[in-house]
Amino acid sequence: MNTAALRHRPESEDCYLYTEGLLTLHFHTAKDDVAKVSLIYGDPYLTVLDPATKKTVWRYQTLAMRKIGTGQTEDYWSVDLRMPYSRLQYQFLVEGKDGTTLLYSDRGLREDTPANRTENVFRMPYFHELDRVKTPDWAKETVWYQIFPERFANGDKHNDPEGTKPWRPADHPGREDYYGGDLQGVLDHLDDLQALGVNGLYFCPLFTAASNHKYDTIDYFDIDPDFGDKALFAKLVSEAHQRGMKVMLDAVFNHIGEHSLQWQDVLKNGADSRFASWFHISNYPLTPFHDPNRGEGKPQYETFAFEPHMPKLNTANPEVQDYLLNVATYWIKTFDIDAWRLDVANEVDHHFWKRFYQATQRAKKDFLIIGEVWHSSQPWLNGDQFSGVMNYAYTEQIEDHFLTHKLSAKSLVELLTDQLMMYRPQNDQVMLNMLDSHDTARLLTVAHGDEDLALQALAFTFTQTGMPCIYYGTEMGMAGENDPDCRRPMDWSKLNGPVWQRVHALIAFRRKYAKTLGQGTTRLTVTPSGLIKVVRAGDAQIVAYFNTTAKPVALAATPALAQGYQAGQLAPKGFVLAAL
Amino acid sequence: MNTAALRHRPESEDCYLYTEGLLTLHFHTAKDDVAKVSLIYGDPYLTVLDPATKKTVWRYQTLAMRKIGTGQTEDYWSVDLRMPYSRLQYQFLVEGKDGTTLLYSDRGLREDTPANRTENVFRMPYFHELDRVKTPDWAKETVWYQIFPERFANGDKHNDPEGTKPWRPADHPGREDYYGGDLQGVLDHLDDLQALGVNGLYFCPLFTAASNHKYDTIDYFDIDPDFGDKALFAKLVSEAHQRGMKVMLDAVFNHIGEHSLQWQDVLKNGADSRFASWFHISNYPLTPFHDPNRGEGKPQYETFAFEPHMPKLNTANPEVQDYLLNVATYWIKTFDIDAWRLDVANEVDHHFWKRFYQATQRAKKDFLIIGEVWHSSQPWLNGDQFSGVMNYAYTEQIEDHFLTHKLSAKSLVELLTDQLMMYRPQNDQVMLNMLDSHDTARLLTVAHGDEDLALQALAFTFTQTGMPCIYYGTEMGMAGENDPDCRRPMDWSKLNGPVWQRVHALIAFRRKYAKTLGQGTTRLTVTPSGLIKVVRAGDAQIVAYFNTTAKPVALAATPALAQGYQAGQLAPKGFVLAAL
Repeated sequence: MNTAALRHRPESEDCYLYTEGLLTLHFHTAKDDVAKVSLIYGDPYLTVLDPATKKTVWRYQTLAMRKIGTGQTEDYWSVDLRMPYSRLQYQFLVEGKDGTTLLYSDRGLREDTPANRTENVFRMPYFHELDRVKTPDWAKETVWYQIFPERFANGDKHNDPEGTKPWRPADHPGREDYYGGDLQGVLDHLDDLQALGVNGLYFCPLFTAASNHKYDTIDYFDIDPDFGDKALFAKLVSEAHQRGMKVMLDAVFNHIGEHSLQWQDVLKNGADSRFASWFHISNYPLTPFHDPNRGEGKPQYETFAFEPHMPKLNTANPEVQDYLLNVATYWIKTFDIDAWRLDVANEVDHHFWKRFYQATQRAKKDFLIIGEVWHSSQPWLNGDQFSGVMNYAYTEQIEDHFLTHKLSAKSLVELLTDQLMMYRPQNDQVMLNMLDSHDTARLLTVAHGDEDLALQALAFTFTQTGMPCIYYGTEMGMAGENDPDCRRPMDWSKLNGPVWQRVHALIAFRRKYAKTLGQGTTRLTVTPSGLIKVVRAGDAQIVAYFNTTAKPVALAATPALAQGYQAGQLAPKGFVLAAL
Repeated sequence: MNTAALRHRPESEDCYLYTEGLLTLHFHTAKDDVAKVSLIYGDPYLTVLDPATKKTVWRYQTLAMRKIGTGQTEDYWSVDLRMPYSRLQYQFLVEGKDGTTLLYSDRGLREDTPANRTENVFRMPYFHELDRVKTPDWAKETVWYQIFPERFANGDKHNDPEGTKPWRPADHPGREDYYGGDLQGVLDHLDDLQALGVNGLYFCPLFTAASNHKYDTIDYFDIDPDFGDKALFAKLVSEAHQRGMKVMLDAVFNHIGEHSLQWQDVLKNGADSRFASWFHISNYPLTPFHDPNRGEGKPQYETFAFEPHMPKLNTANPEVQDYLLNVATYWIKTFDIDAWRLDVANEVDHHFWKRFYQATQRAKKDFLIIGEVWHSSQPWLNGDQFSGVMNYAYTEQIEDHFLTHKLSAKSLVELLTDQLMMYRPQNDQVMLNMLDSHDTARLLTVAHGDEDLALQALAFTFTQTGMPCIYYGTEMGMAGENDPDCRRPMDWSKLNGPVWQRVHALIAFRRKYAKTLGQGTTRLTVTPSGLIKVVRAGDAQIVAYFNTTAKPVALAATPALAQGYQAGQLAPKGFVLAAL
């Protein structure tokens, strides 16, 4: 047996309360190496008289674990438990395919002897509902739609910035261009979005800022005049809520814009500024900025990514913390928003996010928090900071197989299984799964303009655990290279067109089976014929097949939603989504 | 290569800030399987022009990791880093002894190609000093002395409970016996403790309670009249501080005593009691208590360990939280105590301990928190709850080798190495390492009365990372089975006797090399001749050898402190502690 591969981490994604009182335990073994894993478990204080020794000993039971998936190098085993007294002690009995049997205990591997079965146990000392990691149920049934406000729709010509360009969807926008998109444009098209079927609107920043993307905040307490005003935003939230749509705003708390009152005061007053301690400044003068990428030595102050226009905020300063927490709760309390998406969230301290979590949860029940973290995110997903993250770590691997063919189907399935096992399911279920965004090339462009391929990858994403998110224009079949090209003006001429219809059908399927696709279990495999098979089991059972090979593959299935499926054959780039 | 054994967990005990700005990274491989591990790392935003492709790419470096130890199944690799801009992205280049080379990335194992070296990287996004796990430096140089107050010394006959028995150290105390020990007794012997050399006093509970052990608190805000009063306790803390000794009190926050005002009110008023929500009560009447271990079904209320006299507190109730936090800070602010030891800490929720951490840190700088957790403790040791725990998981394994011979020397060294790698060193350094306590049989008894053997185990513990703690009477060579027998009246007749001298010498050695033994690195191995070798490296270098075999072993060393060492030979049960 490969003993070095055996693994379990107490009170973590390997041992967690899922719903109230229901505990899930996971165990890891090397792939194809172990025949059986059993849990030895019981209440730590329940005893029984041992007839052999006449001594009172721990009263334990054993329970077989199920193999629930296979990753790149590991098999995953799982078992669910309820305990009558909310307490558990346990260890694992592992039977290798080579016939070896060992106890995997809290103090290492031990021989399987009667004495060892009752010693060196792991503990889940008490099941505290207060400590259970909770995420909002509504989010698990949400299909998000990401709006880059400057490019979605121009509903009010009066607030167009100087030099606004004509709305030409074929344009390749420059970094500094304006097209006049605004909140009235969103309001005008809310019914179109409802018709499309999405039930969550995720807005890129709306606050006063100097650029077209608004990531360089000037005033966190106001709507940018290019987009409208607070009254209009209040109306937008209300109209969205009336249509059953949730609203998520984008907050940039890692840094602030150079034109902000705070940074301008520092530029003017230097070390004497009352805002000097709001930033990370090592020496003065602050200009010209020293860029280490141009060989200019160490910058005088910290910024986002050596970007002089975005000075980093000192979130260790309680004054800065309080200021940003006021921002966070103001938009919840006054405008009733449902979620924050947090820009560059990984570079802000955990201490701040813990306060942020507490403040926002107090402000609104079931509030959703999505952090921008491109890498693995365990430190933020333990119930006291974020609900989920922008799940590039997941969706980029989908692209790497479906679109760019860097990964085999087998590798994809293994790596996605590994990703799902990194977090508790209640977090996996509220990951923001998007194939593109304002920060990446558009899906269709990555698919080299192949609509079938793009739709297949999108359909796969819609079958996965995690909230699907559509970037504005995907439903219109829009293309675009990396930003700024992925931020072209919306092509409204394609409304209700063929791509729109296909995306609409995917959304309808996801929402029809929202409970199962939102919270069901996930099993990913590759069939012997080379199809990727997804099984989601919950209220219903959803089975999906994806042909990512170059040839048609025989498939007998009853397609609920299909592309490239005819007469028992699934064509390349085809898929079948079926509810059993 | 055993790929299933490769392992690294970002932002955890595998990736942490040790001192300000200094990051340590660990990597795990199967034992003896890997020839070299290198870190590929750099600032995420530093770039360089690739002469081949003329593209701007990530500027990374490589750095070889050191193999720092071997556990039961794993080799541990480590590297320390400082980053100029407090940001890091990284992955691992692993070279197997079989010639295989792979990248271990944030998204699984990948081939070592130039493109893969710059992708799928782990991130330590920003080094926040605020998030660094900190533990008090003073604790790392402390040798603790645990006092069970009822049995340490009777300094005041006036407060002796009715039926107090004569002070006979050879007695086997019953569960309900009283011997009259009190705070005046401790005060009377402070100079003796100073002479012994300890610099920390850890008191079992002092608050008003109904039993001799005082774990069934009646009033958290008063000193038990059997022991004295608050004025006397204030004097004791002050006298201890004058002698350079810290004071740690024991708090029971999981449950309360049945004679407390709160529980009595519940007994009297049932569901109408204003304290009903302070407990976990499922149905009334509350008596007679249903004990599931006597087949009486489910108890009507939750308790500690089905013990009807110790009803469990509902720490999810904010009123209970505030009450207990007031207790915690009262004894710090009014009496200047230095540490809390928390009874049954594992069964109280993390939410409460996070509030407890914040409240106590605000009350006193460098305050120490030790939780009673007998199993692995990662969930409590992330800088927001406990400093360390009562390290039975460590010291019981020492006993299992030195005293009961259940573990071989090789197993001991491997398992202790695994234990040390489970936590950040700043936590390992403030673990409470005791070989016995009021809850276990005494060291000498576990050693079957063999003083040399007991002393050897104690000496080994004194060379380990973690705060050594001596249970009162160990220095007098006292024996005792499990409680209540381990709570015999102190045998003051052995003061300055031969065992006392040997314990005194050990304490003197530990304190002389406090910095190195407190914060130095630890390397545990078994020599070819079968000796256990401990190397601690810091300001000084300490090398220690322990002969746990049955025969004398040749050893050329210059002993600073030795037992059984003569003319180049180390006898069985012997040890040598040497400072190089």
